[in-house]
Amino acid sequence: MTGQLPATAVVVGTGLIGTSAALALRRHGVDVWLQDADPAAASTASARGAGRAGTPQAPVELVLVAVPPVSTASVVVDALRLYVDATVSDVASTKTELQREVERLLGDSPDLRRFVPGHPLAGREVSGPEAARDDLFADRVWALTPGPAVDADRVAAVESVVLALGALPVRTTPEAHDRAVALTSHTPQVVSSALAAGLSSLGDVDVALSGQGLRDVTRLAESDAELWTEILASNAGPVAAALEGLIRRLAAVQSALESPRPDTETVRTALIEGARGRARVAGKHGRAPVRWEVVPVAVADRPGELGRLFAAVGATGVNLEDVRIEHVQGRPTGLVELEVAPESAQALVDGLRADGWSVRR
Amino acid sequence: MTGQLPATAVVVGTGLIGTSAALALRRHGVDVWLQDADPAAASTASARGAGRAGTPQAPVELVLVAVPPVSTASVVVDALRLYVDATVSDVASTKTELQREVERLLGDSPDLRRFVPGHPLAGREVSGPEAARDDLFADRVWALTPGPAVDADRVAAVESVVLALGALPVRTTPEAHDRAVALTSHTPQVVSSALAAGLSSLGDVDVALSGQGLRDVTRLAESDAELWTEILASNAGPVAAALEGLIRRLAAVQSALESPRPDTETVRTALIEGARGRARVAGKHGRAPVRWEVVPVAVADRPGELGRLFAAVGATGVNLEDVRIEHVQGRPTGLVELEVAPESAQALVDGLRADGWSVRR
Repeated sequence: MTGQLPATAVVVGTGLIGTSAALALRRHGVDVWLQDADPAAASTASARGAGRAGTPQAPVELVLVAVPPVSTASVVVDALRLYVDATVSDVASTKTELQREVERLLGDSPDLRRFVPGHPLAGREVSGPEAARDDLFADRVWALTPGPAVDADRVAAVESVVLALGALPVRTTPEAHDRAVALTSHTPQVVSSALAAGLSSLGDVDVALSGQGLRDVTRLAESDAELWTEILASNAGPVAAALEGLIRRLAAVQSALESPRPDTETVRTALIEGARGRARVAGKHGRAPVRWEVVPVAVADRPGELGRLFAAVGATGVNLEDVRIEHVQGRPTGLVELEVAPESAQALVDGLRADGWSVRR
Repeated sequence: MTGQLPATAVVVGTGLIGTSAALALRRHGVDVWLQDADPAAASTASARGAGRAGTPQAPVELVLVAVPPVSTASVVVDALRLYVDATVSDVASTKTELQREVERLLGDSPDLRRFVPGHPLAGREVSGPEAARDDLFADRVWALTPGPAVDADRVAAVESVVLALGALPVRTTPEAHDRAVALTSHTPQVVSSALAAGLSSLGDVDVALSGQGLRDVTRLAESDAELWTEILASNAGPVAAALEGLIRRLAAVQSALESPRPDTETVRTALIEGARGRARVAGKHGRAPVRWEVVPVAVADRPGELGRLFAAVGATGVNLEDVRIEHVQGRPTGLVELEVAPESAQALVDGLRADGWSVRR
């Protein structure tokens, strides 16, 4: 071990995640070996400096399995059998079925003590070893879901690797992990897609009547259908349960609106409960949620216009907490919503107005 | 008439919308009279330069009714009866029930020929005459839903006013308008709230596993519950119908995931149909949707850091199409996603790297 890091590691699966992890491990001096069902992918990763393609002769301390979800269990088990002293981890985005399948394949083998399942919450619009970066995991949460049989020092070793990659290890159980991502990631994906599916029939006038809110809610509907089919199938139970609860709440509103006199109390309650739930996730940095003040500024759709605006913002000395750009249908102009701490809002407004900007407040 | 604009207008309801319209009409030299059930609100609007509080002696050519949805029909009818030559318009966010109610109250009176219903798609997080601005409607769509009995020159007159306010008049029927906003605005609100309501029970670790996608989908859940209860009740039928279709699609996915072997074909189809619907609304400016290339940049959470980044972007000469800031749980850093035309992406990456920025690609 180099400090707490392994001297020799094998990365199986040299896509975006595997190659990024390999690059980061190399940066820490780990001797990394790369394997992929597609030898060209392993070669590409190797050419990028992620390690050597092939199988090491030296004892392997860590195997990171970064293959597609459906193959993860069998590759994990093969690795546990082949590298008899190695700690084996993975990056699959759901954990319960994987744990069950690995346990089924291993029976009561002590190999199970060396399996530390993980899930880095990092991804990009792109994929493949070409898109890999050694800082892909910087500041990202990396869930670890070790079973009760796992050796504590193996969990600690994987946590050291996760920290070395710049990520934040968070320990939980496979079941809690899958319930959480069902609610926070998988069900939102289904909802966004289902809502967007209802828009196919919209005419041009109807589209003109749509705004930024709709674009926010349906953005996830652009996600890759193949990848998400696999993810949803791998977490079918928790997602189905979350959908059941969601459908129940939607049906209550539907029924309230179908009454001859709409049942406004039910509608109001649904909206209030939504605001309460939103407050759990609206906060920045996981802290208690803060309400930023919105300073809307009209900008022309000209090259460099946003750059000029943000330079003007910088000149005011006010710290921008968030930015949203609202595009306006039918005209080449936009509204930029600058979000700042309430006590800074007036200084920003004054500074931008003095600089000639059209602040809409 | 001053050109095509009325010489004298009455604005009933001096909240955000009414006062903003009054300010814009004043800017065009229209003699504006302000009325509100709350005399203090009318005084505030008047003090802001939106016109005079009270009732004019001169003939009134235009009455703009900008009162809360539940009062709109009766105020419209009162105005048609009181100002016997005036064109009367309104700003309520749903149109079918309003039209029905006005027709019921008027019977077969020819007054109906002077009613040109409207709906400006402009709003803000704030309300009241204090928040009004004369450019609130700039570049916003303003739907007009005149019935078949309405005089054509009255519709044209209201269109002139809408254009003078800087907005884009879009003519449609009350039913088509309400179906469209049910799909593009009201149902997304219900969905966002219902999804967010499922998050109340999340623990801190669960929240750590959530990302930007969830925050996008649940953002609307912060909306004002009282206002939205009223809006949803006023468009109950079309929203209930849209919810029914949505629930059917969600239930299909739920059922597919509950099968002993998940029915991946149904899941995949739902995701593909979502992507198709999303393409209807993803475009900027109502044009065919364009896929921007995303250039992610890591930034520290320091005052002025975003300003410095955008100054650097401006220096590259690349036109920024969109910006998203992804906050990272647990650490005071963030990821800024710059969206640019694909052919400009490399120039932006090179320019930012040369300037020392951590581009994550």
